[in-house]
Amino acid sequence: MDIRRIVQKLEAAGQSHLLQFWDDLSPEEQADLMQDLESMDFTEINGFFAAAMVSSQASSEKVDSRMEPVPKDVLGSTTRDRDQLKAWEEEGLLRISQNKVAVLLLAGGQGTRLGVPYPKGMCNVGLPSRKTLFQIQAERILRLQQLAEQKHQSKCCIPWYIMTSGRTMSCTKDFFSQHNYFGLKEENVIFFQQGMLPAMDYNGKIILEGKGKVSMAPDGNGGLYRALGTSKIVKDMEKRGMAYVHVYCVDNILVKVADPTFVGFCVQRGADCGAKVVEKTNPTEAVGVVCKVDGRFQVVEYSEITLTTAESRGPDGRLVFNAGNVANHFFTLSFLKDVVNVHEPQLQHHVAQKKIPYVDTQGQLIKPDKPNGIKMEKFVFDIFQFAKTFVVYEVLREDEFSPLKNADSQDGKDNPTTARHALMSLHHRWVLNAGGHFIDENGTRVPAIPSLKDGTDLPIKCEISPLVSYTGEGLEDLLQGRELHPTLVIDENGIHELVKNGV
Amino acid sequence: MDIRRIVQKLEAAGQSHLLQFWDDLSPEEQADLMQDLESMDFTEINGFFAAAMVSSQASSEKVDSRMEPVPKDVLGSTTRDRDQLKAWEEEGLLRISQNKVAVLLLAGGQGTRLGVPYPKGMCNVGLPSRKTLFQIQAERILRLQQLAEQKHQSKCCIPWYIMTSGRTMSCTKDFFSQHNYFGLKEENVIFFQQGMLPAMDYNGKIILEGKGKVSMAPDGNGGLYRALGTSKIVKDMEKRGMAYVHVYCVDNILVKVADPTFVGFCVQRGADCGAKVVEKTNPTEAVGVVCKVDGRFQVVEYSEITLTTAESRGPDGRLVFNAGNVANHFFTLSFLKDVVNVHEPQLQHHVAQKKIPYVDTQGQLIKPDKPNGIKMEKFVFDIFQFAKTFVVYEVLREDEFSPLKNADSQDGKDNPTTARHALMSLHHRWVLNAGGHFIDENGTRVPAIPSLKDGTDLPIKCEISPLVSYTGEGLEDLLQGRELHPTLVIDENGIHELVKNGV
Repeated sequence: MDIRRIVQKLEAAGQSHLLQFWDDLSPEEQADLMQDLESMDFTEINGFFAAAMVSSQASSEKVDSRMEPVPKDVLGSTTRDRDQLKAWEEEGLLRISQNKVAVLLLAGGQGTRLGVPYPKGMCNVGLPSRKTLFQIQAERILRLQQLAEQKHQSKCCIPWYIMTSGRTMSCTKDFFSQHNYFGLKEENVIFFQQGMLPAMDYNGKIILEGKGKVSMAPDGNGGLYRALGTSKIVKDMEKRGMAYVHVYCVDNILVKVADPTFVGFCVQRGADCGAKVVEKTNPTEAVGVVCKVDGRFQVVEYSEITLTTAESRGPDGRLVFNAGNVANHFFTLSFLKDVVNVHEPQLQHHVAQKKIPYVDTQGQLIKPDKPNGIKMEKFVFDIFQFAKTFVVYEVLREDEFSPLKNADSQDGKDNPTTARHALMSLHHRWVLNAGGHFIDENGTRVPAIPSLKDGTDLPIKCEISPLVSYTGEGLEDLLQGRELHPTLVIDENGIHELVKNGV
Repeated sequence: MDIRRIVQKLEAAGQSHLLQFWDDLSPEEQADLMQDLESMDFTEINGFFAAAMVSSQASSEKVDSRMEPVPKDVLGSTTRDRDQLKAWEEEGLLRISQNKVAVLLLAGGQGTRLGVPYPKGMCNVGLPSRKTLFQIQAERILRLQQLAEQKHQSKCCIPWYIMTSGRTMSCTKDFFSQHNYFGLKEENVIFFQQGMLPAMDYNGKIILEGKGKVSMAPDGNGGLYRALGTSKIVKDMEKRGMAYVHVYCVDNILVKVADPTFVGFCVQRGADCGAKVVEKTNPTEAVGVVCKVDGRFQVVEYSEITLTTAESRGPDGRLVFNAGNVANHFFTLSFLKDVVNVHEPQLQHHVAQKKIPYVDTQGQLIKPDKPNGIKMEKFVFDIFQFAKTFVVYEVLREDEFSPLKNADSQDGKDNPTTARHALMSLHHRWVLNAGGHFIDENGTRVPAIPSLKDGTDLPIKCEISPLVSYTGEGLEDLLQGRELHPTLVIDENGIHELVKNGV
């Protein structure tokens, strides 16, 4: 290690203040800081900052007047195109059976808002099985492989690429290892790491969060594309012969991992890029919308549009901008290659103003109460604009979208309770649609829509293992005509009624 | 009082068991029981029981196959008929100015699920003003009278009929009296009481909840129609020259009391009966739907339909049965007269199976853990079937419907927090649409859809007194171009910014 080389590098980049407490540091702290600084490319970072500030100025112009809704001809829908769903699903299962479909999980977040000290995927939301989000997703992959194999009589594999961040990598890997990859083969679960960038003040100076510690943050879920290159993930996908990639976020308990209907829809439409959406019905719902801006597809974040635009409605009474982004995307591998090699380096970072703890010139740690600097992020949907054929697939929220973002609280939005209820409500519907019925403790049949009265605990407690059913299929033989008592658990070992107090 | 006459009456009705503990009672208890029994018409009650049991058997046949959605030609919509809204509103304001419009509040409930020991209307949900539901509704009436008077230069009055039950009458009246009728004239707030009926076991025997106490319950919100006759409310409406009545439930914090647009729509359509609805978008939402059954309009309760029917969708992807009942009805007075005089007596009670505490033959109070008897109820929408011209008016949930049903809890449905947020979110939108902007503590403009990140307390705290604006009108002069800090309160005394810590 050569401190003089670092000093020069910092001077050249105007970041010499990072060494202002050097003499106060212990030898270990000095070594750690040296290592951090050596790994950083300050010329590149300063360039990111300059470009991000310019593009953030430009993008502060009202986006409203430049927005157009998703054209009808690129839209598919689970509710309006019911006659085509079977064909799309079969297309998807065929591609899966041909070993052409990979899934890629965005799991770099830290669960800060959720209030847990581990990655979100390690959360269990209190289901009867106590399964974590990671386990649920792993088992969906297993079941889907099985479905494709049964249909096409050929062994297949859906490789699972998991993007973590520096902060979540080791505990995520340990968790999978401890759980034997939830039945998947270790070599088909591939971890890689998104990049980190330093937080900077408004003058482009990197912020110290300790005398010897640079303030670092992951570079946004769009850091994916850079990481796909640096971690040689695209190469790995090519080597495995993949053609299609389903990208999704870890926090959606209902996510249909590698959803064959979505994949099949995109493939049949010849799309290189597709987004799954749910209908936004409340104008002020905090969800980004897929739309066109200046003729190019993108996601406009809820915080960027005016109320007038958010509230505008078409002749059918629906919101004009109603394609709610659920961070569920389809890409062809060739599109991803172009992104990684050509487009991504040209994308500017977005600027997020933040309250960033810092040490002042006396070395005191200050927690500011106003934003004092920026974090630089790219978004996973920044690359929509490069698609040659972009499609949008609308699904039902109650079937496919219930994100886990917050801790349980009175506000009751997107928390463990809502996630658990969403899953159990879906599985309850699967049971009914398979011909089963629930019976309450008094032997009375429970209505399809259970009563909210008398403080009954809602919904019907019912959980079906992904190993048994991916999307409600295969339950008729088990359930047709059966009367069932909650709590009902159906797993690979059969039907279990966890009845309290006996009946 | 003549105990022998009561004994005979009970023997004739097969209800002699009501006196089985007579000798154990104190003279005061005997007197109370005597009084209760004397007031009851056992022949009528037995008749109700017999008819209710017969019709409950009949109605247990699947309703699904007999259901049809609301035909398009009877539907009006705030989103699809925007070009007519102004005309409807003017029609409604004209009728109000002519002293033709009354409102009728259903407030017989006790707030049991809400967990408060007083009627729901006396709840405040934690708004900055601490106003109760009753006060909010009273002030909307005041403002609406003012709007009609300003427009038509004539003094007018919207009389407010408030139906309580035996259990809520005195505290409701006291509450209004203590608050000087919230600015309304005492003579224009008319209280009346819905009937009570005894709970009965499955053999038609009236249940004792104490040795000397009959188990009584209100006769459902459809008890309205009987009470309209017995309390001479229809007569009072006639005397005042009313022609139209808006009936609603106390628990909806967003209710547009005497909504001129709804009234005007119904009047222009020549309807004798109309129902306000919101679009049901989630198949398993626990809301009744307005539809036709065997060709006649009615509300089918969520517990009565199968999942297949609840989930069925039209070609546009919307639920077929999506007219969600919000207990907001329009009636002409002449229709109500027919109902009271002709139709109501022919309506059977619905049977609700309940767990009813009772005293056993030893006089011990038993709290059953299974339903052991029934309560008999009529529903306010039972009379839709008698309408000659029935119309349905669809409004936006976020503008008009947020009921208060449960206590605050993790489940987060229909509780004080959701009610408060719904109102403040609506008023936030009013401010933006009037040209105002919110500024946060750092001087930054808050986006129209505020961020959920960083645990920000949501929504923007903002409350506009109904005395200032009924539905967002009249705010431009106050707010155009203004920058505002939450907590914002706008009332008859002006604009108040309740800023913490100063700025």
